[in-house]
Amino acid sequence: MEFTVTTRDPSCGARCGELRLPHGVVFTPAFAPVATRASVRGITAGRLHECGTQFLLANAYHLALSPGAETVEKLGGLHAFMGWPRPIITDSGGYQVFSLSALNRITDEGAEFRSPLDGSRMFLGPREATRIQNVLGADVVMAFDQCPPFPCSRRTAEAAVRRTVLWARVCREAHEGEGQALFGIVQGSTFEDLRACCVEQILGVGFDGYAIGGVSVGEGARLRERIVRFTAPLLPAERPRYLMGIGFPPDILRAVAEGVDLFDCVAPARMGRNATAFTEEGRLRLRNSSRREDPRPIEEGCDCLACRLYSRGYLNHLFRCGEMLGPILVSIHNIRFYHRMMETARRAIRAGEYAAFCEAFLSRYLQRKDGRS
Amino acid sequence: MEFTVTTRDPSCGARCGELRLPHGVVFTPAFAPVATRASVRGITAGRLHECGTQFLLANAYHLALSPGAETVEKLGGLHAFMGWPRPIITDSGGYQVFSLSALNRITDEGAEFRSPLDGSRMFLGPREATRIQNVLGADVVMAFDQCPPFPCSRRTAEAAVRRTVLWARVCREAHEGEGQALFGIVQGSTFEDLRACCVEQILGVGFDGYAIGGVSVGEGARLRERIVRFTAPLLPAERPRYLMGIGFPPDILRAVAEGVDLFDCVAPARMGRNATAFTEEGRLRLRNSSRREDPRPIEEGCDCLACRLYSRGYLNHLFRCGEMLGPILVSIHNIRFYHRMMETARRAIRAGEYAAFCEAFLSRYLQRKDGRS
Repeated sequence: MEFTVTTRDPSCGARCGELRLPHGVVFTPAFAPVATRASVRGITAGRLHECGTQFLLANAYHLALSPGAETVEKLGGLHAFMGWPRPIITDSGGYQVFSLSALNRITDEGAEFRSPLDGSRMFLGPREATRIQNVLGADVVMAFDQCPPFPCSRRTAEAAVRRTVLWARVCREAHEGEGQALFGIVQGSTFEDLRACCVEQILGVGFDGYAIGGVSVGEGARLRERIVRFTAPLLPAERPRYLMGIGFPPDILRAVAEGVDLFDCVAPARMGRNATAFTEEGRLRLRNSSRREDPRPIEEGCDCLACRLYSRGYLNHLFRCGEMLGPILVSIHNIRFYHRMMETARRAIRAGEYAAFCEAFLSRYLQRKDGRS
Repeated sequence: MEFTVTTRDPSCGARCGELRLPHGVVFTPAFAPVATRASVRGITAGRLHECGTQFLLANAYHLALSPGAETVEKLGGLHAFMGWPRPIITDSGGYQVFSLSALNRITDEGAEFRSPLDGSRMFLGPREATRIQNVLGADVVMAFDQCPPFPCSRRTAEAAVRRTVLWARVCREAHEGEGQALFGIVQGSTFEDLRACCVEQILGVGFDGYAIGGVSVGEGARLRERIVRFTAPLLPAERPRYLMGIGFPPDILRAVAEGVDLFDCVAPARMGRNATAFTEEGRLRLRNSSRREDPRPIEEGCDCLACRLYSRGYLNHLFRCGEMLGPILVSIHNIRFYHRMMETARRAIRAGEYAAFCEAFLSRYLQRKDGRS
């Protein structure tokens, strides 16, 4: 892995960079659609590429449950398996273990839980999560961390930081993927001193890149923004910074201003499935009966498949009939919207005008009533 | 509309033709995927074109219920609405009125029923069905017919024939679509004399093409084959013959041998959604656990998107996780399979070898255990 910061915006912390990974270059700041189970819901790899997707996020926990890392390996590794020949980051599954599983026991070794698929006993710790990701063959392997809930007591947050650091060391040691990068994750909930303390220790272990974890767990946009504003500058400037699981356009654009380089979020696909499209003027609800005879595309001038070929009226019809094509087309638009937003952000940084761009974008984006975030 | 028979196979009744319609030429024998509500489940128009789709079948009844023919017209007509610039046939909705609706009353004027969407009172008769299709702007408008259930008494079948003929005359008279072709439909259930009598009267009304209706209603492959073998040769040789709602590969190939030119069926998409793929060696069930680590494509040598990029193992994974991409990919394969089968059939006819081709294809297709039909 190689990361080069190519431009620093003088107006704020935003920067452009190039992240060279085994399966290609990611121009940062960049956004990854989420392919939890090695598929972005209903969208083929070719379409994602057309939308401007540079890299994807898949999930080690989900893929370990089914079909199993060894099965993916036998089928040629994750890239071949899912027909995506470009970079992939895999999340370690820490977040999922603590949020989705019936946990039996957590020790310093890891977490024992029941599979939500068949109730069978499973164990996932830093060693296992790293091995799974090495076997899957991701370009970037994420350390296995403990993600505390929100809100949580200082004591719970401290315990999560302690385990996250302990596990970070084990991941670092266990990591055997040839050419695969390994990123550390910072926890600490909403406690600034715990975040700072976690950063220091994680930096001490030493990783190829650093992620801010434990956000998007219910803390809300304002607290999240504070965590990012505080934590991002503590991370080394010459390494990629990744804000995990974030977010809506305002979250992302504000974090870019703090120097964050990488993002992933289910929002464009999930909102698309729920008939909500992102536009520069805010969100657009396509189920709304006012769209029924609306001949306009989702967004004038958008070059996505949905906007090139279909009217809001047709999309409204698809959603009202429960036709699968509706969620697919609006997801495609939303993913294209996110990537175009990042492209525009990169151009603004290169022009040294990111702060002004960000302000203008958000004031337009937030003007529509249903465009709250 | 212009229809030219370009080749007649000396070995059987099969023929090749060119059907010129306002939105393009259909090379026959040809198969249409079904876009009931102006969408083939989860598959964009561009993908269908890649699969070799020449024309689609949409449904006047469903589109009249939602979003309404006038809405489609305001949004540019059916072709623009659904982003499909090539030929479209619309079914009149006769079949749907009698199979899907809570019927209140049928008279010689038409059928009064309750909308399955909101329970509102609706009326559809030959005049309404024709007007709807004229407004939608289909290349081929189908006459409004009465489709009796199977089994049915001779008396019920007679009554359906009488109404179908009566309504055919009204449709002929009401039809106002400029450049739109109008096809008549033959009913008569499994009674050969009623089929013959219906053919005679429908020919008397005079249409641009003729369809065999009232099949695929539970009569089974053997009875269906008998109806087709008996009825198809009664239809004028210089007009396109359309077997509605049929079918599985053997049904289609055998009907081609009787001189049928046009087909439509939900089977490739519906079977695809249920994880069943069509191959030259019969059906393949992709949910089967034996596919889990199978690195092969659905069908070796197939040029469809699914076979070019994905393994049976990946498809198995998608279905087991409930990922939307599974149904989409297998539907794409199945539609491509159907079109390739028709392309091969056309080549065999042009070579004057259709009977031998058909026998060889079916003996290979029917050999696999789960490839019964």
